[in-house]
Amino acid sequence: MTDLPRTADLGFAKLDVDRAARTGTPEVVFAGGKTPPETVGCLAGLVDAGAPLAWATRVDEPTAAAVRQRWPDAHVDPVARVAWVGTPPPPVGEVLVLTAGTSDGAVAAEVAATLAASGVGCRRVDDVGVAGVHRVLAVAPDLAAADAVVVVAGMDGALPSVVAGLTDRLVVAVPTSVGYGAAFEGLAALLTMLTACAPGVLVVNIDNGFGAGVAAARIVRSAQR
Amino acid sequence: MTDLPRTADLGFAKLDVDRAARTGTPEVVFAGGKTPPETVGCLAGLVDAGAPLAWATRVDEPTAAAVRQRWPDAHVDPVARVAWVGTPPPPVGEVLVLTAGTSDGAVAAEVAATLAASGVGCRRVDDVGVAGVHRVLAVAPDLAAADAVVVVAGMDGALPSVVAGLTDRLVVAVPTSVGYGAAFEGLAALLTMLTACAPGVLVVNIDNGFGAGVAAARIVRSAQR
Amino acid sequence: MTDLPRTADLGFAKLDVDRAARTGTPEVVFAGGKTPPETVGCLAGLVDAGAPLAWATRVDEPTAAAVRQRWPDAHVDPVARVAWVGTPPPPVGEVLVLTAGTSDGAVAAEVAATLAASGVGCRRVDDVGVAGVHRVLAVAPDLAAADAVVVVAGMDGALPSVVAGLTDRLVVAVPTSVGYGAAFEGLAALLTMLTACAPGVLVVNIDNGFGAGVAAARIVRSAQR
Amino acid sequence: MTDLPRTADLGFAKLDVDRAARTGTPEVVFAGGKTPPETVGCLAGLVDAGAPLAWATRVDEPTAAAVRQRWPDAHVDPVARVAWVGTPPPPVGEVLVLTAGTSDGAVAAEVAATLAASGVGCRRVDDVGVAGVHRVLAVAPDLAAADAVVVVAGMDGALPSVVAGLTDRLVVAVPTSVGYGAAFEGLAALLTMLTACAPGVLVVNIDNGFGAGVAAARIVRSAQR
Amino acid sequence: MTDLPRTADLGFAKLDVDRAARTGTPEVVFAGGKTPPETVGCLAGLVDAGAPLAWATRVDEPTAAAVRQRWPDAHVDPVARVAWVGTPPPPVGEVLVLTAGTSDGAVAAEVAATLAASGVGCRRVDDVGVAGVHRVLAVAPDLAAADAVVVVAGMDGALPSVVAGLTDRLVVAVPTSVGYGAAFEGLAALLTMLTACAPGVLVVNIDNGFGAGVAAARIVRSAQR
Amino acid sequence: MTDLPRTADLGFAKLDVDRAARTGTPEVVFAGGKTPPETVGCLAGLVDAGAPLAWATRVDEPTAAAVRQRWPDAHVDPVARVAWVGTPPPPVGEVLVLTAGTSDGAVAAEVAATLAASGVGCRRVDDVGVAGVHRVLAVAPDLAAADAVVVVAGMDGALPSVVAGLTDRLVVAVPTSVGYGAAFEGLAALLTMLTACAPGVLVVNIDNGFGAGVAAARIVRSAQR
Amino acid sequence: MTDLPRTADLGFAKLDVDRAARTGTPEVVFAGGKTPPETVGCLAGLVDAGAPLAWATRVDEPTAAAVRQRWPDAHVDPVARVAWVGTPPPPVGEVLVLTAGTSDGAVAAEVAATLAASGVGCRRVDDVGVAGVHRVLAVAPDLAAADAVVVVAGMDGALPSVVAGLTDRLVVAVPTSVGYGAAFEGLAALLTMLTACAPGVLVVNIDNGFGAGVAAARIVRSAQR
Amino acid sequence: MTDLPRTADLGFAKLDVDRAARTGTPEVVFAGGKTPPETVGCLAGLVDAGAPLAWATRVDEPTAAAVRQRWPDAHVDPVARVAWVGTPPPPVGEVLVLTAGTSDGAVAAEVAATLAASGVGCRRVDDVGVAGVHRVLAVAPDLAAADAVVVVAGMDGALPSVVAGLTDRLVVAVPTSVGYGAAFEGLAALLTMLTACAPGVLVVNIDNGFGAGVAAARIVRSAQR
Repeated sequence: MTDLPRTADLGFAKLDVDRAARTGTPEVVFAGGKTPPETVGCLAGLVDAGAPLAWATRVDEPTAAAVRQRWPDAHVDPVARVAWVGTPPPPVGEVLVLTAGTSDGAVAAEVAATLAASGVGCRRVDDVGVAGVHRVLAVAPDLAAADAVVVVAGMDGALPSVVAGLTDRLVVAVPTSVGYGAAFEGLAALLTMLTACAPGVLVVNIDNGFGAGVAAARIVRSAQR
Repeated sequence: MTDLPRTADLGFAKLDVDRAARTGTPEVVFAGGKTPPETVGCLAGLVDAGAPLAWATRVDEPTAAAVRQRWPDAHVDPVARVAWVGTPPPPVGEVLVLTAGTSDGAVAAEVAATLAASGVGCRRVDDVGVAGVHRVLAVAPDLAAADAVVVVAGMDGALPSVVAGLTDRLVVAVPTSVGYGAAFEGLAALLTMLTACAPGVLVVNIDNGFGAGVAAARIVRSAQR
Repeated sequence: MTDLPRTADLGFAKLDVDRAARTGTPEVVFAGGKTPPETVGCLAGLVDAGAPLAWATRVDEPTAAAVRQRWPDAHVDPVARVAWVGTPPPPVGEVLVLTAGTSDGAVAAEVAATLAASGVGCRRVDDVGVAGVHRVLAVAPDLAAADAVVVVAGMDGALPSVVAGLTDRLVVAVPTSVGYGAAFEGLAALLTMLTACAPGVLVVNIDNGFGAGVAAARIVRSAQR
Repeated sequence: MTDLPRTADLGFAKLDVDRAARTGTPEVVFAGGKTPPETVGCLAGLVDAGAPLAWATRVDEPTAAAVRQRWPDAHVDPVARVAWVGTPPPPVGEVLVLTAGTSDGAVAAEVAATLAASGVGCRRVDDVGVAGVHRVLAVAPDLAAADAVVVVAGMDGALPSVVAGLTDRLVVAVPTSVGYGAAFEGLAALLTMLTACAPGVLVVNIDNGFGAGVAAARIVRSAQR
Repeated sequence: MTDLPRTADLGFAKLDVDRAARTGTPEVVFAGGKTPPETVGCLAGLVDAGAPLAWATRVDEPTAAAVRQRWPDAHVDPVARVAWVGTPPPPVGEVLVLTAGTSDGAVAAEVAATLAASGVGCRRVDDVGVAGVHRVLAVAPDLAAADAVVVVAGMDGALPSVVAGLTDRLVVAVPTSVGYGAAFEGLAALLTMLTACAPGVLVVNIDNGFGAGVAAARIVRSAQR
Repeated sequence: MTDLPRTADLGFAKLDVDRAARTGTPEVVFAGGKTPPETVGCLAGLVDAGAPLAWATRVDEPTAAAVRQRWPDAHVDPVARVAWVGTPPPPVGEVLVLTAGTSDGAVAAEVAATLAASGVGCRRVDDVGVAGVHRVLAVAPDLAAADAVVVVAGMDGALPSVVAGLTDRLVVAVPTSVGYGAAFEGLAALLTMLTACAPGVLVVNIDNGFGAGVAAARIVRSAQR
Repeated sequence: MTDLPRTADLGFAKLDVDRAARTGTPEVVFAGGKTPPETVGCLAGLVDAGAPLAWATRVDEPTAAAVRQRWPDAHVDPVARVAWVGTPPPPVGEVLVLTAGTSDGAVAAEVAATLAASGVGCRRVDDVGVAGVHRVLAVAPDLAAADAVVVVAGMDGALPSVVAGLTDRLVVAVPTSVGYGAAFEGLAALLTMLTACAPGVLVVNIDNGFGAGVAAARIVRSAQR
Repeated sequence: MTDLPRTADLGFAKLDVDRAARTGTPEVVFAGGKTPPETVGCLAGLVDAGAPLAWATRVDEPTAAAVRQRWPDAHVDPVARVAWVGTPPPPVGEVLVLTAGTSDGAVAAEVAATLAASGVGCRRVDDVGVAGVHRVLAVAPDLAAADAVVVVAGMDGALPSVVAGLTDRLVVAVPTSVGYGAAFEGLAALLTMLTACAPGVLVVNIDNGFGAGVAAARIVRSAQR
């Protein structure tokens, strides 16, 4: 097997430097469970390998500080917990990002940052949960204008079911860990979304704004092909 | 303690013959896990103790046959799996019973039968799930006319959240075991309803149309007091 | 659709200012997962939209301080973790609130605060758990005087089953996260209440004193209609 | 190690023939998951090894038939699903066995059969669930007369909590799989009993009447020592 | 609200006849939990309302027979458990459907039938599980030719993670209930897919070939817009 | 009902002052979830009502300090997290308390403190887990000398199964939360003990040394009757 | 990539014909979820591709009949549910297979059949559960003679913990679904084995005798290298 | 029983000083849940009993400090959380330790430290997760050179399935708690590994690097016998 993709071997990490070519998204550093030096090391490895954008998620305060110290002009979004070095591509298309409540905002911010880093446009409309369903109905024009829809909801996670019945766009559903008791850290919303009575809903992991953003970007790029 | 409520002792069962006086609902026989002779025996004990209506739930085919053999004029509802001997009181008030889908019909039938046996009026509107949310909006006049609302839903169980945002009536939510996979025999709908983002939703056990009916009857009687 | 309910759009939140008219309870701010400025902003939005009572739950210490700084005469209940700006309506009716143990007190306080904010009377009797069942029997006169009953219990959650067999009032059961081990943060009590052998028990989410209070208020108002 | 207990080796089974001497209860054959010939073979092995009583639990119809064919005078209790060959010792002491409902009868029958086989007296009082709590209070004289108490309950499993608050006898709690939905095949009752707010409750596996009977027999024998 | 979508009211069902116009997919009858007459009635209602294709999923043998009796030229796929009356639109685009093993075939058949009914092209490659990872690598040309990819896998559910690292197409992952023990009826595969280490994976409910097909069709149509 | 047991009503708590007479164990204050003043208040109420020993469990550091401040000669065991005011009765009988590992020591200490407060003798043998099964065999003389056995074990929870096969004493099994990963905070040990292949094992809640101690004391007192 | 392993493409299956060369074990057909013709087709494909032994697991009665019809001299073990065509290699080494109880026999039979098909020797000792721990101690000579040990146990699953403390051989633990109630279809035994207090225990899926056998064969072959 | 293994009795612990002779691995101190003095006491007891290497796992910072204070030349690995006193035997054989991601490094370090203490050689290759499956293929030469393979992976836990299809070495799979949401603290990876579609995978508890190391050492020693 002579033509395996290239790997940048840092010892503690093997960077998959051809991943952007293969999948449209570069290897992105998951900072959860890594020390700040490990995350900075991975980002530096990607920069050294020529990545136009070296990018990390789940960036906590100490890691953000370490990134800024190494690259003073790095972009850090403390709400989304995302950091990057370099310049994202200019945005194409538009993804509509809805939240059920204000408390879901941090996850929606991760979706938005992921779209920005991916060079995809984003429009956010917040706090349109089904307890006041007229707020959902009011986003009909936004749905019609979007290439794809991401719906972020905790607690009962009921919003994607309603949205998917209103549009022919693909609905990417993100359950969040907002809630308490029988919300079970997002499990209730996750199950709701998996069993949505409206088809056209696809689900990512709890609080996984990054995965939702990457998926939505793939849809937009698919539409641009 | 000289004034304990009376009990009719059948040996294998102790009938709580004063329960209607205490709680508004007589002891109702749960036929699940009982043999047909045991269920018939309990009903006979209640009849002998002077109950105006002797009543059983979770009545399967063999039990229904045994009941009909003993009391040819017994009322048996095979969809609701309810049977009774005697005549229910004339209905007062009105409870609105909604289902999310046609498959939830058997549980809604148990709600309706329970209301009938309790002497409470019932109006059913079926198949108004949130995938076509306009169907929910169309029941607004029915909501305004009801004393209480029972919402029966399986799969994502999202309907009570939407309904509770549209009305000031108490919403009794009944999760059903309709669905598959991550519906986990009604667990998904149960968690959704417990974490409903709209307040005013109260929940009963999965497929427990009887409990929902008794509770709704208490609300109606409370309003009549 | 020309007659959608009004929404006060704060950008990060869309306040459902007609909710009190639709459902009898105004939109109440869930402060869990919100920053203190976000909660204060939502309350201010409700005040600006003319709400007679702007109200938040799950208010922690920093949020309470921010509320008090903005509205020095705000009402803050640190045990119930509830805060409001404005004056609740005078109370009508009476809801009996029982606890199984002293440790359930904070949740019962949230029920009581919710009833107060809703303009409904409340009578609390604490620490009547079934390990000394005579304490339950002693509340019989209180049950007869109430419009509805709220039962708050952790650990085994057995109290609602006993209470519902003693009264014809609707019993709203609130499982709490009091306990350890197989209590599983309130799951044991939740399952107990959902499977209560006495009908007439309706259940809310674990530790959800707010939901129980809103539901009980709906019952009282239904009885007043 | 020269003095290991004796074993009767049947190839597919190794009978622990000294277990009665060590533990007070002989090895009892668990017929669940065994073919009828395997169960008969184990019983025959015990008889051959001189056991005064060879005994099996979870005996289904085909196994019962095979036992009767081999030993026409065998004792078979189809409700308890217990069979034995030989004669139990005469009973000493008394264990009170309570059930919450008639549907719990089969498990209580297994408790009673186990006590009979163990030579311990048994008194059953059925259907004293907490929905009519006066039925529980009425057993106070029975509690005072017993050496130990076994409480069998499904659904909410609340009965042991109440009983343990009324007596100084040890309460052995047996959750049953009676119920549906959130009863989760006995899990709800199991958790309730494990978290009973009254101390003095000890718990066995769901539907494990055999284990409860053996334990109660140990208590009685302990009191006789 | 004057312009609500139209509903065909059958009493036991309310058909959402404008759903195809809103969402691109007509209301499809979920035959699970419905009697054969109910399913036939729903299909007839859709035909009467002018639907070009009236379509049902989870069609068991008795329901299939009832459909064929009413419409002798109905299309019935017994492996996919799908039936329809009418003619699907001609296919556009291409979705690649992969299975990890032969036992996943029935779910993949439901995906394929859903795509056919939706007028979208489908290419299936079966049995390319990761235990022989070279089989996955061999589908690289198929990945490059597809508009979207659906991956169907039970047991460990590991295939989507590998595929998503090889392509820039969106990967719709369908966990199946194939397996035993710790597969927990598809739960293991579901969790694997939700936590896939490669982004670009979106997940549907266990065994939900219909939902995956509808979602993939939306992606293809999005690319065609 | 004129002869209900007496209650000392503190407002926030109702002390069940006749519980010792009814059950052999006085009401014991569960300090978990109570503030230090609440626990001190309950203890004071019990002292005022004439209890010979006022007793609390789950006593953390601040509560212990508050108890010592109020009653300088109170007994406080920081390992067992138990505190009492007054003098326990002299010990009778002997309970053997075994631990599987040193990490289970705190729970065993709660068992021992409970026995001491109950006036029952206690002998502890620690660290006899089944990984070195000869350590278990070596306790045979201790088993023969005991009135009852309490076995405390975390991780796999296998020790009670082995012990119950070696003795005719009742075995009270206490699962602990020692372990990690699939130990699931004691759930693994709990399930092991509930499914013990040796009969004669009864189980209490995870980490519930108090419950095990009260139960063992009941057995000893039963043997003394 | 020019040197990918060969695949025999049957359309509905892709046989990994080089797997024996890569992994020491050929591709084995999992008959669960396959129709009898599919299983026969896979076996025929393997025979045609020159496999010395074509082999299937989870073979039910209809599949066994179909295999025998196609290859009258096929080996079928109905207890182990294993079938093969061809001749296994002569056995080398020895694996000791222990069961905790007779009811675990079918899973042990699958282990034994897998070892036979793999050309590895097997010695079975059945029914040595820890309730009579002397039976375990008696197998010490067998442990010393074995290359590896497989322990099969349901219910509490405690046997591997004891065995691993007695030997320096690797212990492969197989939880079985034998038991009821809190055994949760093998989950209790699985958790016990994963948390075994003795190291040297490795675990396979519930009832996975095949996986245990393959693993044990790898160990033996590793020792032979 | 005259020849029981020796035990060093410290009161709070009973050290199993012959365990190395029996099982090849000495008793190793699990520092989790022990105080620093307890851990130091156990290590000292082992040193006093003549153990060539006294060894502890799950050593946190305070315990590490206490160990270093007592034995200044003790070996402490803060990443692996392992400490030992004495000198390990020289290494024989080689175990290949793979990680799916950099965040799995701490668990892999515990595997490596365990192998070092056991006198077994170790080769680590990190960050070869299946999202870039070419990185896995690149380790083929390492697989061929190893006596056994340990695979450490969190999130989807898919790596062992792929590796086991590439080698005839035994694969010891270690799920880690790396991940969030539906990773459920390692449960997702655990289930994936238990249901791996490739045989030859054996599983240890979540984050149990110690158990994996001991098992791999047993395999190597078995191959050396």
